[in-house]
Amino acid sequence: MVHLNKTIQEGDNPDLTAERLTATFDTHAMAAQIYGGEMRARRRREITAKLAEIPELHDSMPLPYMTREEKIMESARKLTVLTQRMSEIIDPTDAGELYHLNNEVLGIEGNPMALHGVMFIPALNAQASDEQQAKWLIRALRREIIGTYAQTEMGHGTNLQNLETTATYDIGTQEFVLHTPKITALKWWPGNLGKSSNYAVVVAHMYIKGKNFGPHTFMVPLRDEKTHKPLPGITIGDIGPKMAYNIVDNGFLGFNNYRIPRTNLLMRHTKVEADGTYIKPPHAKINYSAMVHVRSYMLTGQAIMLSYALNIATRYSAVRRQGQIDKNEPEVKVLEYQTQQHRLFPFIARAYAFQFAGAETVKLYERVLKEMKSGNVSLMADLHALTSGLKSVVTHQTGEGIEQARMACGGHGYSMASYISEIYGVAIGGCTYEGENMVMLLQLARYLVKSAALVKSGKASQLGPLVAYLGARSEPTSLIDRVPNGGITEYIKTFQHIAKRQTLKAANKFFGLMENGEKREIAWNKSSVELNRASRLHTRLFIVEAFARRVNEIGDITIKEALSDLLHLHVNYELLDVATYALEDGFMSSTQLDYVRDQLYFYLQKIRPNAVSLLDSWEFSDRELRSVLGRRDGHVYENLFKWAKESPLNKTDVLPSVDTYLKPMMEKARQSKL
Amino acid sequence: MVHLNKTIQEGDNPDLTAERLTATFDTHAMAAQIYGGEMRARRRREITAKLAEIPELHDSMPLPYMTREEKIMESARKLTVLTQRMSEIIDPTDAGELYHLNNEVLGIEGNPMALHGVMFIPALNAQASDEQQAKWLIRALRREIIGTYAQTEMGHGTNLQNLETTATYDIGTQEFVLHTPKITALKWWPGNLGKSSNYAVVVAHMYIKGKNFGPHTFMVPLRDEKTHKPLPGITIGDIGPKMAYNIVDNGFLGFNNYRIPRTNLLMRHTKVEADGTYIKPPHAKINYSAMVHVRSYMLTGQAIMLSYALNIATRYSAVRRQGQIDKNEPEVKVLEYQTQQHRLFPFIARAYAFQFAGAETVKLYERVLKEMKSGNVSLMADLHALTSGLKSVVTHQTGEGIEQARMACGGHGYSMASYISEIYGVAIGGCTYEGENMVMLLQLARYLVKSAALVKSGKASQLGPLVAYLGARSEPTSLIDRVPNGGITEYIKTFQHIAKRQTLKAANKFFGLMENGEKREIAWNKSSVELNRASRLHTRLFIVEAFARRVNEIGDITIKEALSDLLHLHVNYELLDVATYALEDGFMSSTQLDYVRDQLYFYLQKIRPNAVSLLDSWEFSDRELRSVLGRRDGHVYENLFKWAKESPLNKTDVLPSVDTYLKPMMEKARQSKL
Repeated sequence: MVHLNKTIQEGDNPDLTAERLTATFDTHAMAAQIYGGEMRARRRREITAKLAEIPELHDSMPLPYMTREEKIMESARKLTVLTQRMSEIIDPTDAGELYHLNNEVLGIEGNPMALHGVMFIPALNAQASDEQQAKWLIRALRREIIGTYAQTEMGHGTNLQNLETTATYDIGTQEFVLHTPKITALKWWPGNLGKSSNYAVVVAHMYIKGKNFGPHTFMVPLRDEKTHKPLPGITIGDIGPKMAYNIVDNGFLGFNNYRIPRTNLLMRHTKVEADGTYIKPPHAKINYSAMVHVRSYMLTGQAIMLSYALNIATRYSAVRRQGQIDKNEPEVKVLEYQTQQHRLFPFIARAYAFQFAGAETVKLYERVLKEMKSGNVSLMADLHALTSGLKSVVTHQTGEGIEQARMACGGHGYSMASYISEIYGVAIGGCTYEGENMVMLLQLARYLVKSAALVKSGKASQLGPLVAYLGARSEPTSLIDRVPNGGITEYIKTFQHIAKRQTLKAANKFFGLMENGEKREIAWNKSSVELNRASRLHTRLFIVEAFARRVNEIGDITIKEALSDLLHLHVNYELLDVATYALEDGFMSSTQLDYVRDQLYFYLQKIRPNAVSLLDSWEFSDRELRSVLGRRDGHVYENLFKWAKESPLNKTDVLPSVDTYLKPMMEKARQSKL
Repeated sequence: MVHLNKTIQEGDNPDLTAERLTATFDTHAMAAQIYGGEMRARRRREITAKLAEIPELHDSMPLPYMTREEKIMESARKLTVLTQRMSEIIDPTDAGELYHLNNEVLGIEGNPMALHGVMFIPALNAQASDEQQAKWLIRALRREIIGTYAQTEMGHGTNLQNLETTATYDIGTQEFVLHTPKITALKWWPGNLGKSSNYAVVVAHMYIKGKNFGPHTFMVPLRDEKTHKPLPGITIGDIGPKMAYNIVDNGFLGFNNYRIPRTNLLMRHTKVEADGTYIKPPHAKINYSAMVHVRSYMLTGQAIMLSYALNIATRYSAVRRQGQIDKNEPEVKVLEYQTQQHRLFPFIARAYAFQFAGAETVKLYERVLKEMKSGNVSLMADLHALTSGLKSVVTHQTGEGIEQARMACGGHGYSMASYISEIYGVAIGGCTYEGENMVMLLQLARYLVKSAALVKSGKASQLGPLVAYLGARSEPTSLIDRVPNGGITEYIKTFQHIAKRQTLKAANKFFGLMENGEKREIAWNKSSVELNRASRLHTRLFIVEAFARRVNEIGDITIKEALSDLLHLHVNYELLDVATYALEDGFMSSTQLDYVRDQLYFYLQKIRPNAVSLLDSWEFSDRELRSVLGRRDGHVYENLFKWAKESPLNKTDVLPSVDTYLKPMMEKARQSKL
C-alpha cells in the first residue's frame, strides 16, 4: 500500500505509523519543496540508498562512545575511503550533493579536512594567480597536500585591522619574513591547523620598506611533506577540546622569523615585485563577498540542524507515553500536551522559514554576484547587511529550538543517545564564528541607520529594496483580525510597522545623542542595544516575508495548505513574541493580541496530525540523525537498552576506579570497626 | 595597602586591577550577604585556604583533557583522600561547608558517590526504621557500603504511579520478589547506580496477595560486597555518556525474580508483617517535603553556577580588548560595549536575586517543617507550589545566562579552556531533573487556579500569604515613573498586577472551557500554555519581591547601594521582558515603557564600575572555577597558550590518524601523478 508519508515501513512502532497515516500531503513532494526541486530531493534519496550499501562509510560505533582521538581516527579513515569512492556516489562538483554526503558519512562534528574544501581551496581559487593555481590549487584538489585558512589570532578575531602577525619583505633575499611578535599574535582557532594540515593560507600584515600595507594572504608550508613534522621556525599544535566540533583540530600557529619566497604572496589581485614595488588590487570587495557567501549557506545549514533536533524530539514524543489526560484512558503520547506542541511546532515553522529564507538568500547572492560582474556593486552592501542580521537571528533561534527539543525529550534527551546535545554544541557555534552575533547585528544596524537618515532627509526613494518599507506610509492600526484566515499580508504590515518604528526610534536616539554633543562612537555605543533590537525586528520581518513568498509560489494544493498552516503558526508565534512593540504605540489592540493567542493555539492543534510528517519530509536517514530517540522505526526503548549496554564503562563488571579506590576504602572502613 | 576589593594582588593584570579599584563596597562584606553571614563567608575562605595546601585534593590535570574513565578515576582518588581528611578541613555535619568543599575539590561534574550522601543516606534516615538504621545507616555513614536511590525507570520518570518494577510478597519464604517485567521497567538514570554502588534504595510497586499497595521503598543489595560483582538476578550497568555530569555513572538496573527478605522493606512509616498484613503510614506527605527540600537547595546551586559563568565572562571582558569606540584611542575592553553590559549585568542581578530567593525559600522550608511537626501541614502545599515554579524559572534563566556569558567571551568561550560549556551542561540538567520544568509550572498553575477560584467565589480572605495579591485591589495604572529612584514598590505593584491579571485570565479560560462542556482534563490541557505563563509571572514576582526584601534589610550603606543598583537593573530588565502583559490592558503606558528602557541603560552604566567586584564577592577560587579565561589574576593569554600546549593531541608531533590515513592518502596522490 502506498501512503502519502513515504517513511512508513512494516514493523514500525504503531504509535509512529499512526502519526504518519494522518499526513495530508506527500512527503516526497514536501522534500522537493525543502531541497529546491524534485530532482535534488530524489538525488538525496539515491545517495542515501547508495551509502546504505557501503559499510566502510558507516560509523563503526556510536560517536559518543569514542574519545576525541578515536573520533579523529574514525573520521580520517572515512575520508580516505571517500577520496577513493566519492565519484561513484555523488557528483563531486555539486555542492548540495557533497554537503549531504558529508552530513551522512562524516557527520556534523567536523573532520580532519573540513577546512581544506571549505576555506583553503576557495582561498586559492579567489586569491592565487593563474600561475600559483597551477602550482598549488591542482595539488590541493588532488589531495597531495592538506590546507587550511589561518586568519584569527589569539588576541583578535573580529578586528582584522589589529591582527598582529607580520610579513616583512626582505628585498635582499626576495623573501617575506613571517613573525609572531607576541603570544596574542599566535594564529588561534583555524580548523585543522593544529595537526592535519601541512599548508595554510595565512593572513598577515605586510610590511615593505617599513610601511604597513595591511592584511594580505600568503601560501605557507607548515609541515614537511614527507614526515609531516613541523618545519623549523613553526610553532604549531591543537588548541584543546571545545564545546563541540571535537573532530576538528583547531590549531595555534606561531612564526619565528619564518621565511617564504616573495612569490608565496597570493597575487591574483595584489602584487609585490622583486624590488618591493606594491601593486594595488583594482577593488577591495573580495573578502566581503566571501563572507556573504558563507553566511548565506550557514542559514540552510542551521535549518538542517534545527530539523535534526525537531525530528528526534517529535518522533520520540509520538512514542513516549506519560501521564493521563483522561484518567480513565491509558497514558497518552506526550505530543498530546499543548505545552509540548508549543515547545516544538513553532520551531518546525522556523526550520522551514530558515530553509526558505536561506534558499532565497543564496539565490539573491548569486544574482548579486552576476550583477557585480557587470559592474553593479551596490546591492552587495544591502545583501551583506541582510546576511549579517540573518546569521545572527537564525543561529540564535536555532540554538533555542534545539535546546527546547532536547528538553522536550525529558531525561532521555540529556543522554548522548539522543545526540541532541551534540547537535546543539555544533549549531550554537554559529552564534560566534563567521562574525559574533552582536557585532553582526550592529553591522546591519549601520545599514538601517543610513536608511533611516535617508527617510529623515526626505530621500526615501533612494532606499534599497530590502528597506523600502522604512519609507512607506503606515496604516494607523493593524488589521490582522479583519481578514480571517488569509491575513498574512496584514501580519506582514504589522511586522513592517514595528520594524520601521523601532528602527527610526533607535536611529533617532543615536542622532539625538550626537546632537546633544556626544561623539559619534559614544552615541553609537549608547544606542547599540536599541539598534540591535531594530536589527532583529528587520531580520525577523525578512524571514516572515521570505516564508510567505515561498508559500505563495506553491502550486500543489496539499503542500500549500500544510505549509500555509505552518506560516500561520509562525506569524502568530512571532508576533506574540514581539507584541510589546506593536502594543506600545497602539498599533495593535489587546483584542488583537488575544486573537493572536487564539490563532496560535488553533494552529498548534491544526498542525498536530502533520507534525511528524512535516519532519519526516526532511528525509534524514537514521545514519545521519545518529539518534536512538529519533529512529525512523520508533523502536526506541529496546535500542536505548542496546545502546547503553555498549557504554565503554560496561566493558568490565567492576570499574578500575572501584578496584583501585572505592573497594579498598570500603574494606578499610569495615575492618576498622572490628 | 588595603583595598575594598579583597581580590586584588600584586602582579595581577592591571586591566583587572583597575576594575577592582573602582569598587564602592567591601567584597568581604558582600560575601557575607551572599553566603548568609560573616561567619559563613569567613569559613568558606578558610576552607579554600586550607585546600590550597593539600595538593592531593587538586585536579592532577585539567578535567577537559581527561577521558570519562580518567575523570572517574581521578574523582574516586579524591574521594578516598577526602574520606580520610575531611574532618580536618570542614565540619562534616555542616551542609554548607560540605557543599563548598565538594565544589572546590570534586567540582560540578559529579562524583562516584554523589548520590550516596544526597539521596541514599537521607532515604535511610527518612524511611528506615530504627532497627534498620542501626543495621544499614551506620554502615553507609562509615562508607562500608556505597548506595544510591533508584526510582525512575526507562519508561517513567514523572508519573510514579505508573512505575513498572514490582515487589511481590512471598508469604511462604517471607521474601519480596523484585521483578522487571519489561524493558521500560528497567530502573534508568539513578546516579552512581551503574558501577559504583553496591546497594540501592529501590522504589517498586508492592503486591501482597495479588493486591497492589503502590510504590514502596526497599533496601536492595546489588553487588557482592567482597568482589563488587553484580549479584545473581541483577542486570546492572552504566547508561552511557550524557550532555554533562559524566563523572557520574548513571545506571540501569533490572531484576529477574530477585529475592530480598521481607525486612528489607523500609519500615519507618509503613509495615508488612510476616503473614502479609499491611500497616499503613500515618500520613503520606513524606516524599512531598523531600522534593521541596531538594528544590529549595537547587536554587542557590543554580545561582552559584550562573555566577561561575558570569565571573569568567566579566573578568575576561575586562581583559579582552577588541575594537575601538574612539578611533584615536587604543582598543577598548569589551566590557565597555553596551551590548556586552546588557548581556552580562542583568544576569549578575539575577544571580543575586536567585541566591537571595533561594536562601529565603530554604528558611521558609525550615519554618514550615517546624510548623508541620506541630501539626500545621497547610503551608507545605503553598511552599511546594512556590518551589515548583522557582525551580523552573531559575533553571531556565540560569541556562540562558550561562550561555550568554559564554558567547560574551567570543571564540575563546567556546573552548573548554573557558569551562563555561561544561557549567552550562551541568546547570541546564536542572531544567529536567527533579521534575521537568513544564510539569513543574503546571503544578504551580494548579495551585494558582485554586487560588483564582477562591477569588472568583469571593473567598479571597482564604488565600495563602504567597498569593494574597490575587485578591487585593489593583491601582488603575502603574506608577513606576512617579517615584523616581525609590519606586521599587511601584514596580512590585506592576508585577503583581500582571501576574494577577494573567492568572485570572488563564484560570477563566480553563473555567470557561469546562462551562462549555469540555472535560476537566481536556480544558486543562487546552489552557496549559497560558497557565504556565501565569506560573512564570507569579514566580518572577516572588523573585523580585525576595530580592527587594533582602536589599531592604541591609544595614551597611555601601553594600545596600550596590545591591540597590542591581535591584533597579533587575526590575527594569524584567519588566521590559514581560512588558506585553503590562501594556495590553493599559496598566503601563508607552511613556512608562520608555522610562523603563532609560532606567535600564542608566543602571547598566551605573553598575559598570562595580561589575567585576560584584562577582569577585562570590569568592570562587581559581581551582573552583577551573577556567583559564576566569583566572583571578587576569593573565589569560599566556595561560591559554600553556593550556593548549597540554592538549592530549599535542603529545605527538604527528597524530596517528595522519600516519595511518592522511599521509598515505597524500603520498598515493603524489605518486599517481608521476
